[in-house]
Amino acid sequence: MNDHLVVVKAAPFNAETALRRLGEGITPTPAFYVRSNFPVPALDPQSHTVAVEGAVARPLRLSVRDLRELGVKTLVTTMECAGNNRMALAPLPTGEPWQGGAVSTARWTGVPLGAVLERAGLQPEATEVVVEGADHGRPKDGPGDIPFARSLPVAKAMHPDTLLALEMNGEPLPADHGAPVRLVVPQWYGMASVKWVARIVAVTEPFTGYYQRQRYIYDYGDGAAPTPVTAMQVKSLIVSPLEGEEVAAGGVVVRGLAWSGAGGIVHVEVTVDGGENWQDARLLDAPSPYVWSSWEFHWEAGEPGRHALRCRATDSTGQRQPDSGKWNKYGYGSNGVRPIAVYIR
Amino acid sequence: MNDHLVVVKAAPFNAETALRRLGEGITPTPAFYVRSNFPVPALDPQSHTVAVEGAVARPLRLSVRDLRELGVKTLVTTMECAGNNRMALAPLPTGEPWQGGAVSTARWTGVPLGAVLERAGLQPEATEVVVEGADHGRPKDGPGDIPFARSLPVAKAMHPDTLLALEMNGEPLPADHGAPVRLVVPQWYGMASVKWVARIVAVTEPFTGYYQRQRYIYDYGDGAAPTPVTAMQVKSLIVSPLEGEEVAAGGVVVRGLAWSGAGGIVHVEVTVDGGENWQDARLLDAPSPYVWSSWEFHWEAGEPGRHALRCRATDSTGQRQPDSGKWNKYGYGSNGVRPIAVYIR
Repeated sequence: MNDHLVVVKAAPFNAETALRRLGEGITPTPAFYVRSNFPVPALDPQSHTVAVEGAVARPLRLSVRDLRELGVKTLVTTMECAGNNRMALAPLPTGEPWQGGAVSTARWTGVPLGAVLERAGLQPEATEVVVEGADHGRPKDGPGDIPFARSLPVAKAMHPDTLLALEMNGEPLPADHGAPVRLVVPQWYGMASVKWVARIVAVTEPFTGYYQRQRYIYDYGDGAAPTPVTAMQVKSLIVSPLEGEEVAAGGVVVRGLAWSGAGGIVHVEVTVDGGENWQDARLLDAPSPYVWSSWEFHWEAGEPGRHALRCRATDSTGQRQPDSGKWNKYGYGSNGVRPIAVYIR
Repeated sequence: MNDHLVVVKAAPFNAETALRRLGEGITPTPAFYVRSNFPVPALDPQSHTVAVEGAVARPLRLSVRDLRELGVKTLVTTMECAGNNRMALAPLPTGEPWQGGAVSTARWTGVPLGAVLERAGLQPEATEVVVEGADHGRPKDGPGDIPFARSLPVAKAMHPDTLLALEMNGEPLPADHGAPVRLVVPQWYGMASVKWVARIVAVTEPFTGYYQRQRYIYDYGDGAAPTPVTAMQVKSLIVSPLEGEEVAAGGVVVRGLAWSGAGGIVHVEVTVDGGENWQDARLLDAPSPYVWSSWEFHWEAGEPGRHALRCRATDSTGQRQPDSGKWNKYGYGSNGVRPIAVYIR
């Protein structure tokens, strides 16, 4: 599609951000990773409506204009695909073979989902809010032709930063990113940020849809009941130099990003040897609960040859990236430390 | 120092074969991987001698000519560095960051070590034979200035195919490969094939040298006594297409190699999906106890995008490559299945 993205699947279109395009702050829209389970539905932003129903006092049908009139806010969030770095898990789980680029950051403008639910009169017996996209299809092992749908607990649905987004980086949403209206759930993996929102249903029983109970679950294969995937796990990556890159001996600035769905990043460490020495990287941003932190590390690159560089992040709750991501059947939340090979000339 | 090799360390020179240069059968000498613990010793092939001493009736000092006069034989073996694919283990162990190319195959011509030991009158109380190189240096955590040395049990030392090699692929040994005389121990990882052989010592007690007891050992970090690294573990790799390569949709011939130090390769399987389907590859060579087997697999490449390709080998003893190599402190014997990402246009 463009040189910002690496295509993982052509149809439906799935692509990760080329690592050389991942940098500080906002990811340009054409470089934002794309994850779609089904073909993009063709929705007319003039006539498209969102139904709000279920355990609400006043079922609604809202146009995009109706939504906007509820009042919009803008926030910046980092969003990562739950399957990002699936390729690092062994044995490789089923699913799209994401490497490391299914993570991006954008500025979203939209109306809080909570404002819509309040307008509809969310009833006290509601426990979850199901958000359904207009996209649909037949997963190989699914129950037939189904829409993409995920639920949020009421508290997360009512959080003032859970948005029905209408704009991305100051422009109307592109089709691949859910036009004309998508959910944006800060701190959670991307599957929660349902695209092409068509229906919002307040429910009083746990939602058991395919993407809630058969996929986007942690199934560790140990017999324990699987749990739905929710918040992003703490993670970091090196964006410069990249795997296979050659650098001159001398001072090399190693740059990277780190994020967590549990809170801001308070610490990033780097090792350029066998792991005997982990050294502190310098965080360039104040810890942010929603947005990745840029960091840099001064590497005095000496001995010519191949060197293995690694980074690991710690978030404000004390969670640190593990040496290896925890294997699970469908390959979600893969956040293990990943060495990259860099060459000194 | 050529386009056949990827430099892992410039000094001492360590380099792995570029995967695009790994093919069927013999590896051209300039593409054969190089693993040296110390700088190359400058030995004059005219004046160099090998001392044979210890538990022998007749200590000897043999020139290269003396060795050759004992009678040479030629055999082909695959040799793999014990640390090959160390980069695939997590956490990354200390040591050179080998990826997958520290494996090669050559035709060696030399005199059986057993013939030398017989000539010297190996005594029945000898239990091991220590082979020492002329290379030496100070390992960071070692006992001072030491030569590279490893021991073999008497049975392996006396095996008719354990050679003191004088030629590689029909030419005198190059300096990087141990000129003028190196050991070649078929089926064992490369550390056993001591280069620049200077001294052969028959001993009656277990050898406790640094490279026998502090390195080239499996230390699983579980409190059990470490054991010396010996035979190569069963392994396979894909040599075409390579990681990141783009292929046209349609019939793609996936080619690779497989080997084991325990016996010939009897089975290679390939999967091009999430692992639901492992399919048999076609072995192009009869199983050989010493030489890798070439294999190919017909992949009907369909859906455009990224695909994860994996292979796994089974040897004649029934050992099959594991999903993940078993982590050990120094990162030896890393033989887990490794997915590669290939793109269909």
